Formats: sequence, structure tokens, C-alpha cells
Amino acid sequence: MTNRFRLHIEYDGTRFCGWQRQAQERTVQQELEDALQELNRDQPVTLYGAGRTDAGVHARCQVAHFDLNTQRSARTIQQALNAKTDLDIYVRDCVRSKKDFHARFDARRRTYRYQILKQPSVFQRAYAWYPPFSFRYKALKECAARIVGEHDFSSFCRAASEAENKICRIYESRWINRKNMLNYQIVGNRFLHSMIRMLVGTMIEVARGKLTLYDFEELLNNKAVEFSPFTAPARGLFLWDVKYEQEV
Amino acid sequence: MTNRFRLHIEYDGTRFCGWQRQAQERTVQQELEDALQELNRDQPVTLYGAGRTDAGVHARCQVAHFDLNTQRSARTIQQALNAKTDLDIYVRDCVRSKKDFHARFDARRRTYRYQILKQPSVFQRAYAWYPPFSFRYKALKECAARIVGEHDFSSFCRAASEAENKICRIYESRWINRKNMLNYQIVGNRFLHSMIRMLVGTMIEVARGKLTLYDFEELLNNKAVEFSPFTAPARGLFLWDVKYEQEV
Repeated sequence: MTNRFRLHIEYDGTRFCGWQRQAQERTVQQELEDALQELNRDQPVTLYGAGRTDAGVHARCQVAHFDLNTQRSARTIQQALNAKTDLDIYVRDCVRSKKDFHARFDARRRTYRYQILKQPSVFQRAYAWYPPFSFRYKALKECAARIVGEHDFSSFCRAASEAENKICRIYESRWINRKNMLNYQIVGNRFLHSMIRMLVGTMIEVARGKLTLYDFEELLNNKAVEFSPFTAPARGLFLWDVKYEQEV
Repeated sequence: MTNRFRLHIEYDGTRFCGWQRQAQERTVQQELEDALQELNRDQPVTLYGAGRTDAGVHARCQVAHFDLNTQRSARTIQQALNAKTDLDIYVRDCVRSKKDFHARFDARRRTYRYQILKQPSVFQRAYAWYPPFSFRYKALKECAARIVGEHDFSSFCRAASEAENKICRIYESRWINRKNMLNYQIVGNRFLHSMIRMLVGTMIEVARGKLTLYDFEELLNNKAVEFSPFTAPARGLFLWDVKYEQEV
């Protein structure tokens, strides 16, 4: 009998070309689908993720689902996936879900976090960005406050972005000041390609005095401007959490 | 004029064959000495570290000293070393020290920390050990308490250890229970080769029921026993801090 399963996946994005399967590259979806295929008498299994992550972006919590005709328990499947995938993927949880659960379409809120180091750290160097110049924390907070609400984020996505509708609803956008880190946390219904890294990079440009808060607002309002957003490095970004209807 | 400088160095031990210079291998001492040589008109400079770390062991705070005939400021030397070494070494601090300061011989207390994961974590996998079996935290604490004081640690060092005197004075030995980690912290006047990893590995053997607390005590008292200590993996161990006379 075919059952639907829901996964909670953690991955270190450093050595992946992102989530989505590609012909020649190592991706998270491909590595997990290959493992699932082994559990399915070598027949392909499609894995649907809540959100795509770009090359180098990490996930503390990626949610995904798949269908499998199996007698195995969810626990056994979890262990098999962890045995068959490399150490930079860890399936934290595997449960049977409702037949109509969809990891991507049912997701209501996605949380991403971007980690910035106040000082270099060899132990965090793969998981955070250390901007090698001084900047004002206050300006970061002022920019972040402007992002909350519904906006057309056309100025903050790759030109090649395939989404026609560029309107995203942002529920939370704030900086958290920790001991050796500044964490930017953003919660929204959806995000465009590279959007968060462009928001962070541009906030940093304002905070270091290369752009003004007014420039940032002009970008948010999609006014014609002569500069383009700066894209912060992928290594600082984490897909942090995904919430579904009943959890919001 | 020749001045003596004191460094505070942080390194990720993953890709190093330890601290000490070796003929064919990449080591922290070699990488820093090579950088110092460039600052010294290509003449060799010897770097003295407070403690040697084994292959794969990390340092949050290694202290070292060297002599250099230079007009450069300590700050400039720090920046040059960070520019010339790879990203897994970071010189956190460089200051001029007294002429007779010796990083190794003047060190009074060395602190090491061993990190154990309660659950696997892809982001901590290079900096902690996840023992893939269940164990009792209480037994770890009981073992740790036995270690405080002065002991001959002959049972807890590699047979090839070069030190003739195997007596170490342990000021602190305790487990710290954190959210997703158990941290073992040990402070002593000196440590033998692999000693901390053997202590941790053997404490874990007691905690999982493979050895008894009595067995552990027999080892500590250097009684003839039929088992040998288990050595915990290098990746969980950090040289955490070094204290000198005036700081104790």
C-alpha cells in the first residue's frame, strides 16, 4: 500500500548545488531521491520540498514529502535515509502524513535566518558571513523594519527569476543581537530567488554608508535607481523553519 | 631591534595534522612559521605554543610566542599572519610581550573542552562527537569527579608518550549539560598525549555500561586490568584556554 511520508531534513549546504535536482551537480533532492529509489525496488521516487535553497545555502529545517509503497515503518525509513546519505544531510524526523499533505503548497510561513559574524571565527566560517568593514547596527534595524508587510520585491530578485508574481507578504523582519553574531530573521508566505541574500546585502550597504535608507526604500518601492542590490554570500543563510496551516 | 610577541590563535583542526611541525604534513605551527618567515626576510622563525594538539583537535585559544626583528606594529603582524594563512587559522590577538615570556613553560593552567552531541547535527559534525548508543549522564558525572586532584595518568596516555613523569594536577573536571550538547571541561597543570580523549572515551564506556565505575577507578590507580581505555574521536576536543602566572 502506498503511503505518504513527511520529512524534516537538516543539511549543510556547503558542498551542495542547492536543493533542486540538476543534471550534473550534487544536490540535496537528488541525494535523497537516490536513497529513496533504493528503498523502492529501484523505481524513481519524487521528493517535494517546502522551499528550494540556492547553492551553498543551509537548512536547519527543510520539510519534504514523498509517496512510497512499503511495509517499512517511518522510523526504519528515517534510519535507511540517514545510512544512505552523506554526513552533510541528516533526516531529523520521518512521519506518515495525510494522503493530501503537500510540503510545498500547504506551507504557510517560511522562516529564514542570516548569520553575520561580529568577529571572524574559524568554527563559524562555513555558516556565517563576516563583512570585513564597519557598519552601524541601528541602520540594519531601520531597514529591516521597512520590509514588514506586503511588497513587490522585483528589485530584490534575480532578473532570471521565474516567478511572475513578485508580491510577498512578510510577517517578521528583524535583527537579533547575540554575543558574537547578528542574526537577521525573516518570516514570509513566500520568497523569490536570492531575495533574502539581496535584502541582507543591501541592508549592509546602507549600514556601512554606501547607500542611504532612502535608497533602500526606493528599491523596495521599485523606483528606477542607478545602483543594484548587493547579494550577501550564501553561506550565512539558513532555511530555519516551515509552518503549515494547523501550526500558524 | 628584536621583540617578543605573544599570539592568541584559534584554529579548526580538521585539516591539520596537529599543532607541531612535521616533515610532510600540514600543521598549524608550520603554516604560521612559514608566514612569519616571510615577515623575517625569509629567515626561519620559531613559534612556541602553549600546548601541542593532536591531528584533528581544535583550538579556541592556543597561546604562542616568537621573536622578530621588525619595525612593524603588533597589529600589522596580526593582519599579515591572517592574510598569509588559510581560513582555518585565525590570529585573534597579537601583542608585544616581555622578553622572558614563554608560552609553554610559563603556562600554569590549561583548559580543554570535549563536546558530545545529544542528537546528530550536520552543523556541529566537525566539532563534536555523537556517540551512537545510549548512556547515563549520571555515570559521566561520577567518573569526572574522580579525576580531580593529583594522579599518575599512565593508564590514560599513549604507550609511545614521551613524558617520563606522568603525574598531572587536575583542578577542575566536570560535565556541563547544555541544550543539544554535553561538554566535558577539564583544567590541569599539564596533560599527556591523548589523555583527555582517553578519559572521555572511557567515561563514555562506563556511562553506556561496558565498564563499571570501579573499572574506571582501577585505571586511575594504574592497577593491572584486562581492558584498555577507549579513545574518543579528535573532532570533539578543543584547547579552550591557557592561563599564566599572573592570571591564575
